[in-house]
Amino acid sequence: MGKVRSDITVSADGYAAGPNQSRDHPLGEGGEQLHNWAFALEYFRSTHGFGDGGEVNASTAVVVESKANVGAEIMGRNKFGGGPGPWRADEPWNGWWGEDPPFHCPVFVLTNHARQPLTLSDTTFTFVTEGIDAALAQTRAAAGDKDVFIGGGADVIQQYLAAGLLDELELHITPVVLGGGERLLDNVGPIRLEQIRAVEAPGVTHVKYRVLH
Amino acid sequence: MGKVRSDITVSADGYAAGPNQSRDHPLGEGGEQLHNWAFALEYFRSTHGFGDGGEVNASTAVVVESKANVGAEIMGRNKFGGGPGPWRADEPWNGWWGEDPPFHCPVFVLTNHARQPLTLSDTTFTFVTEGIDAALAQTRAAAGDKDVFIGGGADVIQQYLAAGLLDELELHITPVVLGGGERLLDNVGPIRLEQIRAVEAPGVTHVKYRVLH
Repeated sequence: MGKVRSDITVSADGYAAGPNQSRDHPLGEGGEQLHNWAFALEYFRSTHGFGDGGEVNASTAVVVESKANVGAEIMGRNKFGGGPGPWRADEPWNGWWGEDPPFHCPVFVLTNHARQPLTLSDTTFTFVTEGIDAALAQTRAAAGDKDVFIGGGADVIQQYLAAGLLDELELHITPVVLGGGERLLDNVGPIRLEQIRAVEAPGVTHVKYRVLH
Repeated sequence: MGKVRSDITVSADGYAAGPNQSRDHPLGEGGEQLHNWAFALEYFRSTHGFGDGGEVNASTAVVVESKANVGAEIMGRNKFGGGPGPWRADEPWNGWWGEDPPFHCPVFVLTNHARQPLTLSDTTFTFVTEGIDAALAQTRAAAGDKDVFIGGGADVIQQYLAAGLLDELELHITPVVLGGGERLLDNVGPIRLEQIRAVEAPGVTHVKYRVLH
């Protein structure tokens, strides 16, 4: 059975998104700058349809490692997007990623509102309304021997961490103090970690932890 | 003129001390484990009177660099210790560090209660009641061309950071989620940083930032 792991970009003060998130500003005010390190990468640009160009630097191996051996992903309704509440039949929201999403594996979306599965290219989104344990069981089954990736947002990672269901967590720590927003490591209580490794890269430090249960 | 800089150990969730700090638990509940990385160092043990032994590892160069070129230090009343309120004449509190404090430079203590200077070995503690600007002016004068080190606690670093008076900040990020306590980077508002460097070491990641004004 694979690991359950996650990684996420945070500010130096621990926010995964800035204040006042909205459909127009899904990362909150000032939140976009958290991801400058990733936007600069050739790997990110090519895998997310941003076109040619970009750098290869010390972050490249980190993001390649993150994507390797992922069998299936869990994400929250906010990450999938489309605003809160029931799914709209008249104007269906099919995610932020266009016709060829960058996941290339089964994705399970935590939501309070039932919806039929959605297939775009080689990614099928399954909508799970029975909570985090049921979603993990379905995702593990889909992942087979490979890892389950908890894709966020922060609140979903928080829930799996607080429930003792996360094996590894990597933080991409970026050089900005946001001063407000959605903090990743709130409401999870005391947790012992083991530092697996840290990587210095341009405009970011990657620190990978094992969660000790 | 030297730089104004600081470094401090924080948990993965950004706390510089655990909850419920007291005279018996100056680092709060669970706060001692933040400093395991430092306690393990031969350099720390020899400079803090902990006796022989200890390791030389990737953290050693970081702490040696931190102490180099420091001309004078500012610390808060809580770091100096002795509890809140007026200084007691009957039972004078002379700090946590014994007869030979590890500072070896002038130290300026921010306090609301006047007190005559205290000299222990080659460290003189001067008690400043006029606030952070006055303390910085006195400390700069004492430091000459060398750096001013803001020695903490977290609230003092916070005040200098929020006032735009800090040039560099290094975080020693340790693998524990405390879940509560005194958070370093609260109440400082949005601040742009530049990552100077990051160092992976046993049980800690050292990330040094320039504060952009």
